[in-house]
Amino acid sequence: MPRYVRFTLFGKPSYGLAQDEGVRPLAGDPFDGGRDEPQGEVLPWDVITLRPPTSPTKIVAVGRNYVDHAKELGNDVPKEPLLFLKPPSCLVAHGDDVVYPEGESELVHHEGELALVIGRRARHVSEADAAAHILGYTIMNDVTARDLQRRDVQFTRAKSFDTFGPLGPWLDTDFVPAAQRLTVHVNGELRQDGRVDQMVFQPAMLVAYVSRIMTLEPGDVITTGTPAGVGPLVPGDRVVVAIEGLGELENGVVGG
Amino acid sequence: MPRYVRFTLFGKPSYGLAQDEGVRPLAGDPFDGGRDEPQGEVLPWDVITLRPPTSPTKIVAVGRNYVDHAKELGNDVPKEPLLFLKPPSCLVAHGDDVVYPEGESELVHHEGELALVIGRRARHVSEADAAAHILGYTIMNDVTARDLQRRDVQFTRAKSFDTFGPLGPWLDTDFVPAAQRLTVHVNGELRQDGRVDQMVFQPAMLVAYVSRIMTLEPGDVITTGTPAGVGPLVPGDRVVVAIEGLGELENGVVGG
Repeated sequence: MPRYVRFTLFGKPSYGLAQDEGVRPLAGDPFDGGRDEPQGEVLPWDVITLRPPTSPTKIVAVGRNYVDHAKELGNDVPKEPLLFLKPPSCLVAHGDDVVYPEGESELVHHEGELALVIGRRARHVSEADAAAHILGYTIMNDVTARDLQRRDVQFTRAKSFDTFGPLGPWLDTDFVPAAQRLTVHVNGELRQDGRVDQMVFQPAMLVAYVSRIMTLEPGDVITTGTPAGVGPLVPGDRVVVAIEGLGELENGVVGG
Repeated sequence: MPRYVRFTLFGKPSYGLAQDEGVRPLAGDPFDGGRDEPQGEVLPWDVITLRPPTSPTKIVAVGRNYVDHAKELGNDVPKEPLLFLKPPSCLVAHGDDVVYPEGESELVHHEGELALVIGRRARHVSEADAAAHILGYTIMNDVTARDLQRRDVQFTRAKSFDTFGPLGPWLDTDFVPAAQRLTVHVNGELRQDGRVDQMVFQPAMLVAYVSRIMTLEPGDVITTGTPAGVGPLVPGDRVVVAIEGLGELENGVVGG
């Protein structure tokens, strides 16, 4: 069950393998399978600073990919995947704070999602070949300023604030999406509850579809949409996105 | 008049200064002003391969930023800048081909634009301070599949195909936007004709506005919108975006 974490101890980020007691550093990275022999001591969790598990050139997001969520916002399910982009500058790690953009938005929502990470460059790949281009999975909270999303023609501003992309805690290269439960709890209260097999467009289809438009590079992220139950976050909240068999992504919310 | 070009000769891209007879290589890059003494011989234009003049972490684009263009597509001018993102994977250089996405779109349009390049990280900067964060200017052709833009809720798919982001030919650190003419010619015929001071939201305002949402990194691009006259490109066309005092960005169009 290789779970790759990206972290800093001193200086620049490196990769390690998540273990119960801490992180086992790696010489290479998960995109370079030949070099991933662990080296050195296990570093306890409390001495390292966790980073998002990948540093993508782009983050492609899919809107309205669960029927119940499309309905709760009054939308039809699209006939093709509805794509938008989040900038890499929005990413934060497991444990980092989401900063409420005060003065800009008055309604910030959580959207818990399963995210896939590309391992090999993908351009015009078929759905059958797509799985070989997925290195693994992680968890994203596609934080959204719902009021700005409604007001603007485009989703971009609503989805792009710094800290609006919690991603992690790790990249799991063994996770296989099936009927795993996806939940979001805010301050311990269940808000979102779905199963990843309820997606309209599944991961392999999404990789194939996106790769016909834009070349996907190793490390790029496709986040696959959110189930029903989106709702507000306010400063002081703690939000946990959990996917059965994959892990838990937990973040606090602070004032901006 | 420093005009920085990014190019490859053998291997990885490096920067040089554009001169009449060719490119004078630099040890550093335009983001690191202290190291830009030229070194070695001038490399003739025909031995180098031009690259886009920056390798951004994100490309922020502004829709409907010229009154006449907003009107020609039947839209109002927005009260705030209308932002969207193009992925870095869409970038190509001056001289490269735009590949028509056959089977995906049947109406591909040119959109000639003035693009600014960030020199220093910008986060929550004021309009007064914004100019100090702009390193210089270049030219972008924000190629757009107009049929997909109309069909989709989001601009993303229409704006994100590989090769839909010609950028160049160079980064000019002395260009100061004023009333310079911006034209687009297709096969020698004038299609778009405007002046950069006709923008609704000017460069310094755009940097300040975007920096309140997402942190801008050195090398990031904001492309500032297109004047009236957008129209179709077909395989075999040659498209030239020219900005007075800045340069000309020329690209061919080929079948996909």
